[in-house]
Amino acid sequence: MIKNLWGVTQQEQNQKKLKMESNIYIGLVHHPIYDKRKEVVATAITNFDIHDIARCAKTFGAGGFFIITPLESQVQLAERIIRHWVEGIGCVYNPTRKESLSLVRVSRTIDEADREISNLWQARVTRVATGASPHSKNIDFGFLRKLLKDEKTPFFLLFGTGWGLTEEVKDSSDYVLAPIEGKGYNHLSVRSAVAIILDRLLGDRTM
Amino acid sequence: MIKNLWGVTQQEQNQKKLKMESNIYIGLVHHPIYDKRKEVVATAITNFDIHDIARCAKTFGAGGFFIITPLESQVQLAERIIRHWVEGIGCVYNPTRKESLSLVRVSRTIDEADREISNLWQARVTRVATGASPHSKNIDFGFLRKLLKDEKTPFFLLFGTGWGLTEEVKDSSDYVLAPIEGKGYNHLSVRSAVAIILDRLLGDRTM
Repeated sequence: MIKNLWGVTQQEQNQKKLKMESNIYIGLVHHPIYDKRKEVVATAITNFDIHDIARCAKTFGAGGFFIITPLESQVQLAERIIRHWVEGIGCVYNPTRKESLSLVRVSRTIDEADREISNLWQARVTRVATGASPHSKNIDFGFLRKLLKDEKTPFFLLFGTGWGLTEEVKDSSDYVLAPIEGKGYNHLSVRSAVAIILDRLLGDRTM
Repeated sequence: MIKNLWGVTQQEQNQKKLKMESNIYIGLVHHPIYDKRKEVVATAITNFDIHDIARCAKTFGAGGFFIITPLESQVQLAERIIRHWVEGIGCVYNPTRKESLSLVRVSRTIDEADREISNLWQARVTRVATGASPHSKNIDFGFLRKLLKDEKTPFFLLFGTGWGLTEEVKDSSDYVLAPIEGKGYNHLSVRSAVAIILDRLLGDRTM
């Protein structure tokens, strides 16, 4: 555990920052999700996901962004990428990446990330799953915007990689956010979906 | 030139489709744009840009998506990627990519793409540049949404890769769209910016 000049680990520093910024956290789920054949799998981490979603999180002031993967090699890969930009030479080369990647955490499971948020807030976390298909628990964006005004409650927005979050994840969430309605085509990348959803929830609606 | 059963080339087919779908076209500019030192350069094509932006274009019903690069090797690379998914074995493996990538064209310059749109519509193209910094020609999203209702006019939304479109490109455009306002951090990836801007212009605002 690397400690800085003040004897505080990067993680401790970041945890402090997480709580203060916002009550919205993003989870990018690499397991459990479906593959093309609707089998439950673990996907590999995509470097572009980390950067794009971290930048969106920073832009819209989310509290943190959890990369969720049970695969030890993937945990180490993600942590190495983050460390490069937050503490390594990357933070000199491109300081804007340091700012965004400081919001990123790696967790083995959704529950592990949930516990971290819950510990920070000393409150139960409201889980909101997302997906490209309609679901019986769907709430629309306006409803979720209203819920988010309860600033004492942390919200955990879950996004599935691959072919999306499993039914079990959706069923065990408090809410499932309505899909982004397109013109009959609903195959956005998860990066685009996160960008649009954060903008709809946290962006300037008067523009 | 590959012709299909009806003796129509893929390009001819696509051109037809372009015109009918919408009066909004996207241009992803790889030159002229700035690099980190504000020098004018040509960036390399990013595979994720092609897929993510094509999917956004398809989702929100844009008329087409032009990849703009003057580098012959990059033109060929982009065309090979598109062909793989639209005509090659990729269209069997993942048909949703065929649908989105059918909207993609490659042009050497902004003017070349502009001419293609202008020929399709037999009308002057209104150019709208985008960027992360304020500009004297800035119009807001509401204003542009109103302009887009003029269905006889094609609009060409330009997005810069690297460190953004040059001042010359902005100055020679009809309008420059206001930046996406974040919480003091304006370093979204171009993929995220396209997703958010298309949603703000064409997405369901009642959600």
